[in-house]
Amino acid sequence: NTTKISWRNWFLSVSLSWLGLAVVGVIIGSIAGCLNIITAWLASIRTGRCVGNFYLTKAFCCWGSNEETCSHWEPWFQFPPANYFMFISISLLLSFTASLLVKVYAPKAAGSGISEIKCIVSGFAIKGFLGWPTLIIKSLCLPLAIGSGLSLGKEGPSVHYAVCVGNCIAKLMGNYRNRASKGREFITAAAAAGVAVAFGSPMGGVVYSLEEISAVVHLSTIWKSYFCALVAVTTLAALNPFRTGQLVMFEVTFDTNWQYFEVPLFIILGIFGGIYGILIPKYNIAVVSFRKNYLTNFALREVIYLTLLTASFCYFNEFLRLDMTESMQILFRECTVNFHHHGLCDPNSNKVRFIVSLLFATLARCGLTIITYGCKVPAGIFVPSMAAGATFGRAVGILFELFYQKYPSLFVSCNKDEKCVIPGTYAFLGAAAALSGITDLTVTVVVIMFELTGAVRYIIPTMIVVAVTRAIMDSWGDKGIAEQMIILNGMPLLDAKEDFHFGDLYVSAAMSTVVSVIPQDQFTLGQLNSLLTKTNYTVFPIIKSIDDQSIVGIIDREDIKYFLNHHHHNETSSTKCNFISGNPNGLELNLAPYVNHAPIVVLAFTTMSYTTDLFVKIGPSYILVEEEGKLVGILSRKDILRFEYSFHDHTPNHHKTNAAL
Amino acid sequence: NTTKISWRNWFLSVSLSWLGLAVVGVIIGSIAGCLNIITAWLASIRTGRCVGNFYLTKAFCCWGSNEETCSHWEPWFQFPPANYFMFISISLLLSFTASLLVKVYAPKAAGSGISEIKCIVSGFAIKGFLGWPTLIIKSLCLPLAIGSGLSLGKEGPSVHYAVCVGNCIAKLMGNYRNRASKGREFITAAAAAGVAVAFGSPMGGVVYSLEEISAVVHLSTIWKSYFCALVAVTTLAALNPFRTGQLVMFEVTFDTNWQYFEVPLFIILGIFGGIYGILIPKYNIAVVSFRKNYLTNFALREVIYLTLLTASFCYFNEFLRLDMTESMQILFRECTVNFHHHGLCDPNSNKVRFIVSLLFATLARCGLTIITYGCKVPAGIFVPSMAAGATFGRAVGILFELFYQKYPSLFVSCNKDEKCVIPGTYAFLGAAAALSGITDLTVTVVVIMFELTGAVRYIIPTMIVVAVTRAIMDSWGDKGIAEQMIILNGMPLLDAKEDFHFGDLYVSAAMSTVVSVIPQDQFTLGQLNSLLTKTNYTVFPIIKSIDDQSIVGIIDREDIKYFLNHHHHNETSSTKCNFISGNPNGLELNLAPYVNHAPIVVLAFTTMSYTTDLFVKIGPSYILVEEEGKLVGILSRKDILRFEYSFHDHTPNHHKTNAAL
Repeated sequence: NTTKISWRNWFLSVSLSWLGLAVVGVIIGSIAGCLNIITAWLASIRTGRCVGNFYLTKAFCCWGSNEETCSHWEPWFQFPPANYFMFISISLLLSFTASLLVKVYAPKAAGSGISEIKCIVSGFAIKGFLGWPTLIIKSLCLPLAIGSGLSLGKEGPSVHYAVCVGNCIAKLMGNYRNRASKGREFITAAAAAGVAVAFGSPMGGVVYSLEEISAVVHLSTIWKSYFCALVAVTTLAALNPFRTGQLVMFEVTFDTNWQYFEVPLFIILGIFGGIYGILIPKYNIAVVSFRKNYLTNFALREVIYLTLLTASFCYFNEFLRLDMTESMQILFRECTVNFHHHGLCDPNSNKVRFIVSLLFATLARCGLTIITYGCKVPAGIFVPSMAAGATFGRAVGILFELFYQKYPSLFVSCNKDEKCVIPGTYAFLGAAAALSGITDLTVTVVVIMFELTGAVRYIIPTMIVVAVTRAIMDSWGDKGIAEQMIILNGMPLLDAKEDFHFGDLYVSAAMSTVVSVIPQDQFTLGQLNSLLTKTNYTVFPIIKSIDDQSIVGIIDREDIKYFLNHHHHNETSSTKCNFISGNPNGLELNLAPYVNHAPIVVLAFTTMSYTTDLFVKIGPSYILVEEEGKLVGILSRKDILRFEYSFHDHTPNHHKTNAAL
Repeated sequence: NTTKISWRNWFLSVSLSWLGLAVVGVIIGSIAGCLNIITAWLASIRTGRCVGNFYLTKAFCCWGSNEETCSHWEPWFQFPPANYFMFISISLLLSFTASLLVKVYAPKAAGSGISEIKCIVSGFAIKGFLGWPTLIIKSLCLPLAIGSGLSLGKEGPSVHYAVCVGNCIAKLMGNYRNRASKGREFITAAAAAGVAVAFGSPMGGVVYSLEEISAVVHLSTIWKSYFCALVAVTTLAALNPFRTGQLVMFEVTFDTNWQYFEVPLFIILGIFGGIYGILIPKYNIAVVSFRKNYLTNFALREVIYLTLLTASFCYFNEFLRLDMTESMQILFRECTVNFHHHGLCDPNSNKVRFIVSLLFATLARCGLTIITYGCKVPAGIFVPSMAAGATFGRAVGILFELFYQKYPSLFVSCNKDEKCVIPGTYAFLGAAAALSGITDLTVTVVVIMFELTGAVRYIIPTMIVVAVTRAIMDSWGDKGIAEQMIILNGMPLLDAKEDFHFGDLYVSAAMSTVVSVIPQDQFTLGQLNSLLTKTNYTVFPIIKSIDDQSIVGIIDREDIKYFLNHHHHNETSSTKCNFISGNPNGLELNLAPYVNHAPIVVLAFTTMSYTTDLFVKIGPSYILVEEEGKLVGILSRKDILRFEYSFHDHTPNHHKTNAAL
């Protein structure tokens, strides 16, 4: 009978967990669908309105007819400067609303959120970061911020609201409430779904949650992420926000094959990605520090000035004025008879003008991204990076096409009847390079780019570009921007991606000597209270006795406080406290249930590298160090980071060492 | 100056490591290219020869003309039964050569090798499994075995020879010789390259090495796998074995979109995959056990009978006679004006005949795979599984097409001008389902199928099919066939994919009590010798003294033996042995350098789940257990597996619990 009940409980809890994941997926997919529709409409109304159907975007308004000559879509005024004024006004209104909502209701909804989520998954708690207010405000303000034309993307914030959904649903379901590791699994799965819907790339989402979010990959998490991403993307596909039956705005298929003489250009694009990945975070971090020090009280005003700058400036460049995904859609396309947008494909147009315009757009995009990312609205950096890479790539592509047209005899392997140089593919590869540079990811970027376009024949070029970018980042660059933000904000993340190099040093070099220990059955209530008031350690090791300091366990300060607050206080300060399992006589306070009897213990001769491995892979908050059966020290993540900092100040370039090995 | 030297050393070792990976990639790519060419030729000559160019396969011989009517390709004889005889004779010759070579020169080259590689990566050593003889024999015999028409694939063996290459190159480079974890990284990267070249799917290879091979994913391994797979695939692409500029034989692009009414069929295909994944391993394991018990001495004869059966039987079914990749190529294709092979696309052909023929091929393929996989030639199970899935899927697709043609009015969402049901996509999805069922992988299967075909619009259907298969495997099935082989062969692998469920039991329940310990400085040579002869433990814990059993370290039996063999024997049996760091006086034997002073230690109240986690994620061979500062036990992987076995014999279905949670 007991078996039956335990079976039923087990079945219920398993069903509930999968049901929960499905609900999370459906909600994320629905939010993403609404976001896509609203964002497109907001971006659209800045330039005009649909006569008769005010709620339609330009694309839907002109459905079936040429967008350039569509009669249903009218600009706001017949007088161009008035339109310019309207464009800026609407942009300002949108961004002001977004930043006001964020400031008043959920300050934690600002920015990207990926750095914080990485820390949360690795076991660090940030209060209110994944709550309902953050979820609602982030979902509401994201379309406003993007619609305002600021140089920011929806991918980081998508991960954030997705993880909020995951966290809130997990909390509603009782059985995850007290199981941190299961909760983290939910969060990882939701993050996968967030990337999946943001890019329309389900497998990319799963790989992202593997490569970027998880501190340590537990393989059952992969399956959960897969399931959640699938449900979310299917929901999004069913909503069909672009009415194209496709998940992304820029699905392209390249019909031609790449040639070996293109490899040097792939390498150039890869180098661009590497430089982008080194310079943009560097300057952006400088701007963020400046903002932190001087602009904290002027968040609203800063956003307004940024919007004013961006809108007034971008209006005059054809590639900057468009929504970034829309402009990528144009840049990625192969020139065919069906597609002749913008004169980009017109053989008679002035190619040099386009090259200049594209390079200018690249630089402007970089500059705007540097100053915008980190301001107090929901903001991601993936899409602006891709846009900058795409404009650069297209410029390189057009340049190469010009060269090819001038010296066709140099390219013997080209079939004269076919196109040999396709500038669209370079835009695509440039976007991949910049994305890889800014995130410091490899597999994820290739899978996402692959899913965005279905360019199966371009998988080797994409891999080459990303590999070059990654090699440059490894040799000269710092980490991805998410990690750099973590370091800037002083969050205690031991990055699983790093090989910490401590030479042959032992754990005893980095550990803190233990000064406050609790003997298992010789402590009085008075001693305990004075320990709590006189020290501020968050944990206390329990030892057998003062004379025999063998390790018995470890106890949290919070748990002691909880116990003392919820206990009848009819004891005197001389009442004994007992921390060891068993049945103490009624006269003693029994704290044994609060003791963790299985702390991780290492011997004093354990190497630092090995100890760091334990932190990263097993995830304890503290590790105890013993020698000859006696407690001699305690080590936290912060001890390791502090030690690493001081250690590598005196040794050759640390990052190179760990990245390249 | 020291800094300069250490810098140079560092630079050399890093360059060497990347150079090594590049060399591994190039070798793997080259072997794969040769394999592809030889295999295609061997499979081809069974049916005839190319007049004038004996060394050409049928495809190259008839390049540019229709294969059916090509005049350069002639059957061996004009008399059909003689051709049948020739077909069988050549098959027999090929498989006999393969099994003879394997038997004489490298018995370890038989079979797939994936199970063993999983164990090796998780820290278990198998002598000779990754050496030069295995590499050479496996590469030589693989095309022979596949060419003979036996129902086996090249994917598993590709991973094996790739890993051999990785291991041999790593051994040639001195700096990996003594660093097991770095060596394993090389092996993982080589495995990724092996899958990449076998399927022509670089990202699939990387994800495979993540999902299947690595016990624990260290993220720097991902980048190495990526690099190695890229180099290998680029080499293969440069060799261009199929002369199509493509990496795989069956690249297909589906131009149409899937419809929601197809979802029930996707679920049916998923269920097929689940059933396949449950039944085939079950029966195959039975056959393998039978083979182990009764056929060990008849390996050659067994292979001959298998070939005889396969060849004589398959000759009469159009889908079985062809090489499996070739037949998949046909089954995956959409029927267009350019493609009308086999009458499959002929609207006037008898569809019912095809359905019967396909279902028969499915059943026959399953049966042949069950009896063939595990015989003593290099043999993989991925491709036969995909072939079985593809024939089944195509049958379902044709059935559905017939239904659609009969009742077109039921499908209102179909555009009358376009094709609505494409049987080729079902073949593709069926192959994905069977592959997922046999391997118990999800992400890898989707990425590989995606890369094989570039079917970006079919990614959601593929994910649905694989998810259904996986859910069925989780609920009713056992693990993937590689894991089942590991269990059958009694290899000590703690699968990282599993959540081991031990309830709340403590480590003390599973540990072995320590009987043989060595006090750090009170042991004599005589005692040591007698310890070695009287016990057969592979490690001995070192304690402070018999009276104070606090843990000092652990020492390997092999290391003690090495020390004793390489030491001048001018000591008597009463000479003291010292195991503690420091400078003992010249009268003592100093074994301190052989002692591992940092064994993993857990307290007796640590839970079993947590301890298992340590084994899986950190990878030690042994864990010591202490209580109150004293050594009380020792635990190995085998202890855990034995304990799990006895524990779950008395509790409800273990696999369901761990898989579904």
